Amino acid sequence: MTRPSAIAASALPAGAFRTHARVRFGDCDPAGIVFFPNWFVMANAAIEDLFQHRLGIDFHALHAERGIGTGFVHASASFMRPGLMGDDVILTPLIRRVGGASYAFDLHIHRGEEELVRLDLVTATTHLASRTSLPIPPDLRAALLRYQAECGAPASQETPA
Amino acid sequence: MTRPSAIAASALPAGAFRTHARVRFGDCDPAGIVFFPNWFVMANAAIEDLFQHRLGIDFHALHAERGIGTGFVHASASFMRPGLMGDDVILTPLIRRVGGASYAFDLHIHRGEEELVRLDLVTATTHLASRTSLPIPPDLRAALLRYQAECGAPASQETPA
Amino acid sequence: MTRPSAIAASALPAGAFRTHARVRFGDCDPAGIVFFPNWFVMANAAIEDLFQHRLGIDFHALHAERGIGTGFVHASASFMRPGLMGDDVILTPLIRRVGGASYAFDLHIHRGEEELVRLDLVTATTHLASRTSLPIPPDLRAALLRYQAECGAPASQETPA
Amino acid sequence: MTRPSAIAASALPAGAFRTHARVRFGDCDPAGIVFFPNWFVMANAAIEDLFQHRLGIDFHALHAERGIGTGFVHASASFMRPGLMGDDVILTPLIRRVGGASYAFDLHIHRGEEELVRLDLVTATTHLASRTSLPIPPDLRAALLRYQAECGAPASQETPA
Repeated sequence: MTRPSAIAASALPAGAFRTHARVRFGDCDPAGIVFFPNWFVMANAAIEDLFQHRLGIDFHALHAERGIGTGFVHASASFMRPGLMGDDVILTPLIRRVGGASYAFDLHIHRGEEELVRLDLVTATTHLASRTSLPIPPDLRAALLRYQAECGAPASQETPA
Repeated sequence: MTRPSAIAASALPAGAFRTHARVRFGDCDPAGIVFFPNWFVMANAAIEDLFQHRLGIDFHALHAERGIGTGFVHASASFMRPGLMGDDVILTPLIRRVGGASYAFDLHIHRGEEELVRLDLVTATTHLASRTSLPIPPDLRAALLRYQAECGAPASQETPA
Repeated sequence: MTRPSAIAASALPAGAFRTHARVRFGDCDPAGIVFFPNWFVMANAAIEDLFQHRLGIDFHALHAERGIGTGFVHASASFMRPGLMGDDVILTPLIRRVGGASYAFDLHIHRGEEELVRLDLVTATTHLASRTSLPIPPDLRAALLRYQAECGAPASQETPA
Repeated sequence: MTRPSAIAASALPAGAFRTHARVRFGDCDPAGIVFFPNWFVMANAAIEDLFQHRLGIDFHALHAERGIGTGFVHASASFMRPGLMGDDVILTPLIRRVGGASYAFDLHIHRGEEELVRLDLVTATTHLASRTSLPIPPDLRAALLRYQAECGAPASQETPA
């Protein structure tokens, strides 16, 4: 594991999707900073927002109606700066890879220009009922590739981990 | 990132500390499996148990009385098998590295012999009030090294990532 | 305990503060509905929003800088309809009582016109360091009374529990 | 709403079921005390333990296999004393009422002899698929009544709210 270098918010691709969150009192621990698992909770909400507002795929219907799971097979985070209660943060998910039955995001969390957290999230698509691997559905694949193209070549992809 | 290979519970060092958790209804998501950030919550509780029951360091006093933070600078998890509500799981934290102002755990979560999740948790010790780096306190360092020795050379360290 | 009767969203005072939340995948349990403690988490966030956007009191500074706690002494919820993942809900906090060192909210959560949850939240102001009771600070008291007046006499107060 | 009076742990019925929890770092907020929704999370886990260890009803199978929901229609808590990280607490659920399609618990949370939180939890049994009311299944009803009898007439029931 190598620690990623922080990227300024403005250095991320102009075409990237961005969503906001506010660090709540209840997100923080006795040290007064975000309890680390809550960054993953916020990241998951950002992915839901991306699906709804940019990919045009109903994340909830995907699970509840189509029976397709998008569970993580890997999730990692590097914590660069603590998040404090009351912080307004910006979450920017960028697609790193679209495979056959999995795809990967880099997700950046910034407060202003300052990167607080960098996440690496690898999702595998599954058939929920049988919990077996499923190729990425065509509509989701097309949407992921379109979004990846809209982001161009982000700074974070120039030096792949 | 390479996916780790699952290790049977019985292949972990005999001298390792183990603690238990029960997957609760509220830990699970609409897919019926553990919502992934909750694995990090359980892992953090296991580290607290390790401190109390094996290291002999009061995790809570460390923060509340001594003003020393043990915040994560990195946390990652590979999800191998889903956890289901009602599962009894065993959490086994193994020390991978003790540095000057940081230390790293591999934490294995098993259901019976089957590994469900492997976590990689890197902690940096800090002065809580100033949020600046602090060398690992001598009592904690000694306890970490003693525990590492008690574990011998775990299988997970033979093939470092 | 008597079950409250649902109130249509449009029957709440026109001058009331309203904030939004989206029910997330991770808020829901294996029954596919909001895991009940998460309604309290959302309600707490709504109170934070009220403080910031309507009362003009910085909730976070109140705790972190002024050392004043606004802990609950009582919290109750009646669950009328389940919340489902993807639901957009509206949270409307109404002040029921402003006392010497405590105040009480009725908080309504609606999906469209339909009330899902009614909460009753009683807060006591405290000196955080000593955890002792503290009269409501004058600026907070004035803001609470002003907001209560702006709401007029809400339907929920005509038939007190 | 009347504030309940604290009851010493030893004044609760000798035959009552008791389970333990440890207040974790991540359960606490920047005020250093349990973030109040987490008391409800702990209470729900205690009910699961009661089902498994005393009632002999598999809470998880009830949901996952039998398709029966035990959702709350009401949940309230009076917070008497703050819980601090590291606290070992004892949770004692007592049945207050067994109705046709609902049942109610008083749940006491103590640290030593000192009562920290008193909860009032009303559950309605439902058919999960249709989300409609369902009479309490006979095996669950018998178990609830048997447990209620084993508790005798607890102090908390002598002066009903």
